[in-house]
Amino acid sequence: MIKIGIVGGTGYTGVELLRILATHPEAQLTAITSRKEDGLPVADMYPSLRGRVDVAFSSPDKARLTECDVVFFATPHGVAMAQAPELLAAGVKVIDLAADFRLQDVAEFEKWYGMPHSCTAVLQEAVYGLPELHREAIKTARVIGNPGCYPTTMQLGFYPLLKAGIVDAANLIADCKSGVSGAGRKAEIGILFSETSDSFKAYGVSGHRHTPETVEQLQRMTTDKVGLVFTPHLVPMIRGMHSTLYARLTKEISNEALQALFVDAYKDEPFVDVMPFGSHPETRSTRASNMLRLALHRPGNGNTVVVLVVQDNLVKGSSGQAVQCMNLMFGLDEATGLNHVPVMP
Amino acid sequence: MIKIGIVGGTGYTGVELLRILATHPEAQLTAITSRKEDGLPVADMYPSLRGRVDVAFSSPDKARLTECDVVFFATPHGVAMAQAPELLAAGVKVIDLAADFRLQDVAEFEKWYGMPHSCTAVLQEAVYGLPELHREAIKTARVIGNPGCYPTTMQLGFYPLLKAGIVDAANLIADCKSGVSGAGRKAEIGILFSETSDSFKAYGVSGHRHTPETVEQLQRMTTDKVGLVFTPHLVPMIRGMHSTLYARLTKEISNEALQALFVDAYKDEPFVDVMPFGSHPETRSTRASNMLRLALHRPGNGNTVVVLVVQDNLVKGSSGQAVQCMNLMFGLDEATGLNHVPVMP
Amino acid sequence: MIKIGIVGGTGYTGVELLRILATHPEAQLTAITSRKEDGLPVADMYPSLRGRVDVAFSSPDKARLTECDVVFFATPHGVAMAQAPELLAAGVKVIDLAADFRLQDVAEFEKWYGMPHSCTAVLQEAVYGLPELHREAIKTARVIGNPGCYPTTMQLGFYPLLKAGIVDAANLIADCKSGVSGAGRKAEIGILFSETSDSFKAYGVSGHRHTPETVEQLQRMTTDKVGLVFTPHLVPMIRGMHSTLYARLTKEISNEALQALFVDAYKDEPFVDVMPFGSHPETRSTRASNMLRLALHRPGNGNTVVVLVVQDNLVKGSSGQAVQCMNLMFGLDEATGLNHVPVMP
Amino acid sequence: MIKIGIVGGTGYTGVELLRILATHPEAQLTAITSRKEDGLPVADMYPSLRGRVDVAFSSPDKARLTECDVVFFATPHGVAMAQAPELLAAGVKVIDLAADFRLQDVAEFEKWYGMPHSCTAVLQEAVYGLPELHREAIKTARVIGNPGCYPTTMQLGFYPLLKAGIVDAANLIADCKSGVSGAGRKAEIGILFSETSDSFKAYGVSGHRHTPETVEQLQRMTTDKVGLVFTPHLVPMIRGMHSTLYARLTKEISNEALQALFVDAYKDEPFVDVMPFGSHPETRSTRASNMLRLALHRPGNGNTVVVLVVQDNLVKGSSGQAVQCMNLMFGLDEATGLNHVPVMP
Repeated sequence: MIKIGIVGGTGYTGVELLRILATHPEAQLTAITSRKEDGLPVADMYPSLRGRVDVAFSSPDKARLTECDVVFFATPHGVAMAQAPELLAAGVKVIDLAADFRLQDVAEFEKWYGMPHSCTAVLQEAVYGLPELHREAIKTARVIGNPGCYPTTMQLGFYPLLKAGIVDAANLIADCKSGVSGAGRKAEIGILFSETSDSFKAYGVSGHRHTPETVEQLQRMTTDKVGLVFTPHLVPMIRGMHSTLYARLTKEISNEALQALFVDAYKDEPFVDVMPFGSHPETRSTRASNMLRLALHRPGNGNTVVVLVVQDNLVKGSSGQAVQCMNLMFGLDEATGLNHVPVMP
Repeated sequence: MIKIGIVGGTGYTGVELLRILATHPEAQLTAITSRKEDGLPVADMYPSLRGRVDVAFSSPDKARLTECDVVFFATPHGVAMAQAPELLAAGVKVIDLAADFRLQDVAEFEKWYGMPHSCTAVLQEAVYGLPELHREAIKTARVIGNPGCYPTTMQLGFYPLLKAGIVDAANLIADCKSGVSGAGRKAEIGILFSETSDSFKAYGVSGHRHTPETVEQLQRMTTDKVGLVFTPHLVPMIRGMHSTLYARLTKEISNEALQALFVDAYKDEPFVDVMPFGSHPETRSTRASNMLRLALHRPGNGNTVVVLVVQDNLVKGSSGQAVQCMNLMFGLDEATGLNHVPVMP
Repeated sequence: MIKIGIVGGTGYTGVELLRILATHPEAQLTAITSRKEDGLPVADMYPSLRGRVDVAFSSPDKARLTECDVVFFATPHGVAMAQAPELLAAGVKVIDLAADFRLQDVAEFEKWYGMPHSCTAVLQEAVYGLPELHREAIKTARVIGNPGCYPTTMQLGFYPLLKAGIVDAANLIADCKSGVSGAGRKAEIGILFSETSDSFKAYGVSGHRHTPETVEQLQRMTTDKVGLVFTPHLVPMIRGMHSTLYARLTKEISNEALQALFVDAYKDEPFVDVMPFGSHPETRSTRASNMLRLALHRPGNGNTVVVLVVQDNLVKGSSGQAVQCMNLMFGLDEATGLNHVPVMP
Repeated sequence: MIKIGIVGGTGYTGVELLRILATHPEAQLTAITSRKEDGLPVADMYPSLRGRVDVAFSSPDKARLTECDVVFFATPHGVAMAQAPELLAAGVKVIDLAADFRLQDVAEFEKWYGMPHSCTAVLQEAVYGLPELHREAIKTARVIGNPGCYPTTMQLGFYPLLKAGIVDAANLIADCKSGVSGAGRKAEIGILFSETSDSFKAYGVSGHRHTPETVEQLQRMTTDKVGLVFTPHLVPMIRGMHSTLYARLTKEISNEALQALFVDAYKDEPFVDVMPFGSHPETRSTRASNMLRLALHRPGNGNTVVVLVVQDNLVKGSSGQAVQCMNLMFGLDEATGLNHVPVMP
């Protein structure tokens, strides 16, 4: 059994980790920290876990995280980098669900996250936790920067095109839509029910933190200079993410060959489903599961490829992907504890 | 492995059965019938099942249901009673998710469902599939009438009170609210998104089919004459059911003793959670799981007991309960394949 | 033109007042106060008002409210009673949308609202602003306590029954459901989209502030002792309120005579719609309008009358009702500026 | 008073016409036809109209539409062109909310709508009913083809850019999102609450009927060859449309100058609101009103302009726009009866 600690488990990625780990056959939840909720049984905050998770929150000083095998950080940006060195020194692996270990370019991190990076030595060895693209590195990693939700869809959607070198890398467009849980569990007016229900809007159009992360990763796929316009939107749904990706073809290619690029790229992947050409994946077809689905279109048989990508932002977009990484880091079957069938309707 | 057939798997209770059975360690889906969709892979209709369920719908004549160990009917009322005799004769057990085997009073059935009961011999041996109240009979049953969703909440909520003989059985009130999936997957104007979203209404207030079913069962709990006013409402949510039950106390009793009645009644039940006195259970705390939760209130410390009961209408209210019955009928641990942690948020 | 001031216009009842007053032919918005938003154009906070409302918030000290003809308080409880005396002394009428002037029983106010009542002299002359029941008093009032949203539905629903003396006044039950906007525009976890969407729950079942207000008013309708069990619930919709009222008949009466009681009571009311016996009103049939609709049922032709009442909680349940009172106080046609057709779908 | 007939008023555009016309000071609803609902009072189908609209549906043969001044067709495609000649001959003006008179290219019409165009003579004189671009022609038109909802947003969003000749017209992208009411009031599985709520998807990505309509109109704005990729999506909300438009700049231009292009183009328009550069309009800021709002962005100060456009698909996207055209056709102030303040929240 893997002894697991969670730092900051009161948010949505935290409770989703708990949901997944509660039925993971190799996971033993050892500690979950929250300074504010010290002593509160987790199931009192989340009645959905009554009878399933019997630990209580404890304050960080009591939590003895150094006795864990792995610690997940489901915290705001900046927390993991403060605590990682001590944990690593004690032989504990670290998986950060926030952004501390995602961006190798420290200047970009500091620009977008508005704080100095206090832990660049650890950052250098950190592995970007997208198993489909970095599986071998993840297996031996001590520190994982778990990808952002939007970046996961953009990378898996653009990857086969960029690798094949058939699109204009400098002019990629990603029009992305997320359920409201992606904004976290925070007391903010903007994400109230009465503010977000029965409405739709874009946000952060002039610039969003997931742009530099995605560009850094996309640039690893091609020698062409990558340019990306990324437009996030807020959908009145709890979970789910839908990315509509546009790329201009620079070479002649048949639709069959296009489809084959994606099928080949992901044919052995347990959590990427390449649907038939022309399909319209729905976010609900991935709800509460670690599956990401995508489908290709070519409107009017023109020179633009449209890739539709869906996932559950809290699972493949966050906590499920983190557990997928954990499985790899501990030599387990990658899908262990992640066999949830999507909840539909 | 239990060989399983499903008749009529294209509706919501059907696809929910498939979701549950897909990870049930002792279930082997053998056949699923749909005259209309003969030959269509199930996963083409429900992309959430891609890679998880690889059977195709087959027309009833090809389906060889008599080779199954058990057949679930996720069909409109009237179908199961037409097919049950042949299946039983072949040694196949039958679990009907519709109403054919719920009401022992044939006249009531015919009045409320508008059709003659063609199979009263089978009806007589049918067991009402509410494990918490009829566990032993279910274990040896050949035919199960799976309870309606509303009746499940009303029975489990009123049971400890009626059994203790401390409430006015003649004047029970059940104000119940259901998510829209309870209305099924039918092409009807009234359950369109634009008709039901951002709105709330009652329906069937003057009389609803679940009233006679519930009264028949409640009457088994007491020698007093049972009277019930049942008011169903439609909530703009997909899954979930919340029943607010009102009973007038006829005897002095402390709140502690009231709570003890419920705790004692359900202390060994894996799927009934008696929350602390004064709690407010949310439907989402049971989403996509087989758990039913309830809590007691006594407004103003007066003579009215309020019982709040929540469940997922498609799981404990339907398909999960059916699998719970199946587990009992085949000698399995009752919770086999039903350990889903509720999906929250 | 009536010169109008609004204190505290940043919440939902405030912006709804602005929406209504923007097209009211006799209203001239003179000042709207917010200490925090001093100087901010109202339309910058609420883009829906761009081009329609061109005033800016001003801090209370600058607002010169004493020059208004009437001031609405769309504030937390306790604000109106602090400012009312000065305004009244200056000849300004006061309409409080909070609770300061609703309860004549000061002890009950102080118990439920947790603050001393600082202004009992004004309270004594305050009129309860439900036009259908107190029209004449409202016409000459200087101070209005605008009713709570739930109490409006309960009073108008129970009134004809209590007045006729045909029900058991001591055992009334009101099972009420409100859209989330009723909880206000506050940065609280509990009313986030991801916490309230696709779920349903009761709250405040053991005791809610609207109980004493309603009981005080119901008691004015009958010499029998009134007893009320009131159970509020939260519905995943923005606007709308549905109250399901239960009363036990103590006298024989036909359904036709029952219906006639309601038709007669409200036949001249512009904002109460008595629907045909057995109807199921939907909240959306009142959306964004000042109309309240109700319908009667008698399940199984038994001795329980069920009254279904719907309204928009922000209009007839709050800001629309306040404008209805204002119209009466200033000698206008009661429906002036309130002719919005409900928005459907 | 303008005598008005409505053909096919049982759908959402029909009931929205009724809502608007009910308070239009110059409109007198004379007849509304529905073969199926002959004799049914409109308010029985739509209780929101109780007390506000007192006409009943009548079958087309009884409706005496030739006595009207104008007839609106809120019908499926193909109905208006069958009836228009007779009405025009009788001196009745025609406004079709469907597609019969939108596309001047008959071959395109027949390809996308799968029916022959039976009325090309009338089509030739028909005017495309987008007042902001064709106001003078609308004033004198006898027949209006009311624009599609998506095309309205795309045209008003791209127009200033194409007119200025500063973008690559051949590679326009429109990523558009619509509320579910846009799919109409039809008994179809795909638009059930349980199918569309809490989920998001694209549809018709490979080709949608609004593409040829939009391209035909955009081509009128420029001599460059127009190419458009249009991707519609379904949002779990009732009303509202959000179009995210992408255009590549071909000339140097400052953000101030860009903004000025839009401000100048729409400075006299009562129903187009150009928000400050960098704003994020929400669909709800236009709910139930005829206002369209838009805002410009330039991500990373690069060479892509992003235009965010929102409207209520049933008002400016359909019935409100039709009334706006009617006002022009009858010499009224263009905004008559269209002064609804958006409903927020």
